[in-house]
Amino acid sequence: MEESGIPRDEILSILKNAKSADTSYDRVLSSMCTYPHEIAVLAHTQFIEANMGDPGLFPGTYDLEKKVLKMFGSLLHHNNDPEECGYLTTGGTESNIQAIRSMVNYRRDIKKPNVVMPESAHFSFDKVADLSGIEIRKASLDHFLKVDLGLVRSLIDENTIGLVGIAGTTEFGQIDPIEQLSEIALEKNLFLHVDAAFGGFVLPFMDLDYHYDFEVEGVTSMTIDPHKMGLSTIPSGGLLFRETEYLNDLEIHTPYLSINKQYSLTGTRSGAAVASTYAVMKHLGREGYRQVIDQCMEQTEKIVEGAKALGIEPVIDPVMNVVALQVPDADNIRKRLLDEFGWHVSITRKPRALRLVIMPHINNSTIELFLNDLEKLI
Amino acid sequence: MEESGIPRDEILSILKNAKSADTSYDRVLSSMCTYPHEIAVLAHTQFIEANMGDPGLFPGTYDLEKKVLKMFGSLLHHNNDPEECGYLTTGGTESNIQAIRSMVNYRRDIKKPNVVMPESAHFSFDKVADLSGIEIRKASLDHFLKVDLGLVRSLIDENTIGLVGIAGTTEFGQIDPIEQLSEIALEKNLFLHVDAAFGGFVLPFMDLDYHYDFEVEGVTSMTIDPHKMGLSTIPSGGLLFRETEYLNDLEIHTPYLSINKQYSLTGTRSGAAVASTYAVMKHLGREGYRQVIDQCMEQTEKIVEGAKALGIEPVIDPVMNVVALQVPDADNIRKRLLDEFGWHVSITRKPRALRLVIMPHINNSTIELFLNDLEKLI
Repeated sequence: MEESGIPRDEILSILKNAKSADTSYDRVLSSMCTYPHEIAVLAHTQFIEANMGDPGLFPGTYDLEKKVLKMFGSLLHHNNDPEECGYLTTGGTESNIQAIRSMVNYRRDIKKPNVVMPESAHFSFDKVADLSGIEIRKASLDHFLKVDLGLVRSLIDENTIGLVGIAGTTEFGQIDPIEQLSEIALEKNLFLHVDAAFGGFVLPFMDLDYHYDFEVEGVTSMTIDPHKMGLSTIPSGGLLFRETEYLNDLEIHTPYLSINKQYSLTGTRSGAAVASTYAVMKHLGREGYRQVIDQCMEQTEKIVEGAKALGIEPVIDPVMNVVALQVPDADNIRKRLLDEFGWHVSITRKPRALRLVIMPHINNSTIELFLNDLEKLI
Repeated sequence: MEESGIPRDEILSILKNAKSADTSYDRVLSSMCTYPHEIAVLAHTQFIEANMGDPGLFPGTYDLEKKVLKMFGSLLHHNNDPEECGYLTTGGTESNIQAIRSMVNYRRDIKKPNVVMPESAHFSFDKVADLSGIEIRKASLDHFLKVDLGLVRSLIDENTIGLVGIAGTTEFGQIDPIEQLSEIALEKNLFLHVDAAFGGFVLPFMDLDYHYDFEVEGVTSMTIDPHKMGLSTIPSGGLLFRETEYLNDLEIHTPYLSINKQYSLTGTRSGAAVASTYAVMKHLGREGYRQVIDQCMEQTEKIVEGAKALGIEPVIDPVMNVVALQVPDADNIRKRLLDEFGWHVSITRKPRALRLVIMPHINNSTIELFLNDLEKLI
């Protein structure tokens, strides 16, 4: 590190160069993140120093967090004081880690606990396993890429403490049969965590007959990520438990702060992200998010139609704005799309298909350009 | 959640009200956070959507992260490709969790591992214990509030995998005898993690004869937090290992991203905080930080002198800008300072004393006002 500092203008010029080396989202079809909403950025900047790790110093921001939790509760059919049952995390990984940690702490009577989840569960659960040493048992998927319920049942034993279901899988945007998982959970006295990191800001704004949230009796906790389809800033995640006591299972004693206990995984915690999430949720309302989702689903249908016209079928009919296209030699097509045309797409594991996430930054002309370029390669 | 969104102006007005309910840092003597530097906020806003969880999309920001790691290396005497040996975390807690996780993963041969650390270790280590199930053994402190080396030795057994030392304890700003801990670690073949979350941005800018970083042979990892004394934005933490292989022990396979492996605890990760940290470190340089630390230490001396004039002694002579004052009935004085004068201070546990952190937002007149008010209460 240099002895002398560099003047402000020079710093701004270096930052500008770095920024120009980053990819703009215009041709990114591989990410579940996007540009945050303008009002989210405004709010974030205004609350830049707020620290939710020491909420006694920031009662105004803390109050915004409670209001966000109430809005989560309203979206996810949680009517039992949601503001006392969760907090805003750094993202889906922290939420998933903490949901599992709460299960483990609640069931301290089980010495070698395991949790059963679909093979499609996000890799954050592998982090949980690595971190906590608990066993993660993965059930394969059925023909529709939902978890196979028979396999879930067969993996449960006397050391199983919980199940996980996904509402919007990362690879295919599929929704597990949460009602049936709930029946199993209730029958076997297990926790049921629903990872709706992506779907939590999509499904409530669609006219679909899915039941995947707290209205399903056996669901005990949920992950919902404002910094994905919620259009908030990074790091905005959400974790909501059915009961306060599950949140309390995460508490650690905290001396020398304005509070005595802390349930978050991190210590210092972004209040800027809290204000940002509050601002964009309040500003858009259900109506605003419905417009966002409508647009994404319209583009999703266009891309599927266009692909079909090229003789390419999706792996499943898209449930939400995630599409997996069955192209021959997907890895090679992916590479050529990037090298020759600058398109960022990714690959699903089983089957290996081209995975596209149709985020709000994707518009009509993006889809046309993409389909044109895809046509040249097949 | 309401059906209709609320107009932008109304949102901004709600945010303004919430903000005014938050405490300004002017009378906050209890926190290790402060206002971030203006250039940090500028950089943060400019890179607001950058996601280090998917670095292939953000090569410009990723490059800034490498440059920050090089600067950490320079501050902490790490000359062995520091840019390959760490990453920017969400803060001290993530860094400490990950340092311990790396030890555990490296020593998979030990079935029931334990880590020995001072009683003064930050509560984040209690989170590690709760999360991972590994045993944390706490050694009491000596008369100077440094860890007692004899007790450390006595707590080590065949299941001990590592030691922790603190460079800047949260309560007293004390520095553990890192060189002696290093000797023990080398002798017993143990990891040695140094938590310099606070001290990492203080000690390098003081003329002290402490050896607490990678120049000490046995130190294997360090925590350093830019969002404390580094004047960066939340969430800016840092974790640096001596060797790349310890970082590799944290890797998890990541399908459907622009990279194949991920070592961070969170998935989506703030690139804004990376740019912010880069900007402020480059802008201030060693010279700039030295000025900041000089000012904080000057105020610290003033408060100690002023307290002594009132007949109040510090628990130890302050090593850095943290002071613990021995007042009678500290809890009551703390409460009255807040209720009657709006001062936020905290309390150390053993002995119970008034704890003050003299951050850069504290100036001459703050100190005078505080001492005046304190005098009225004793």
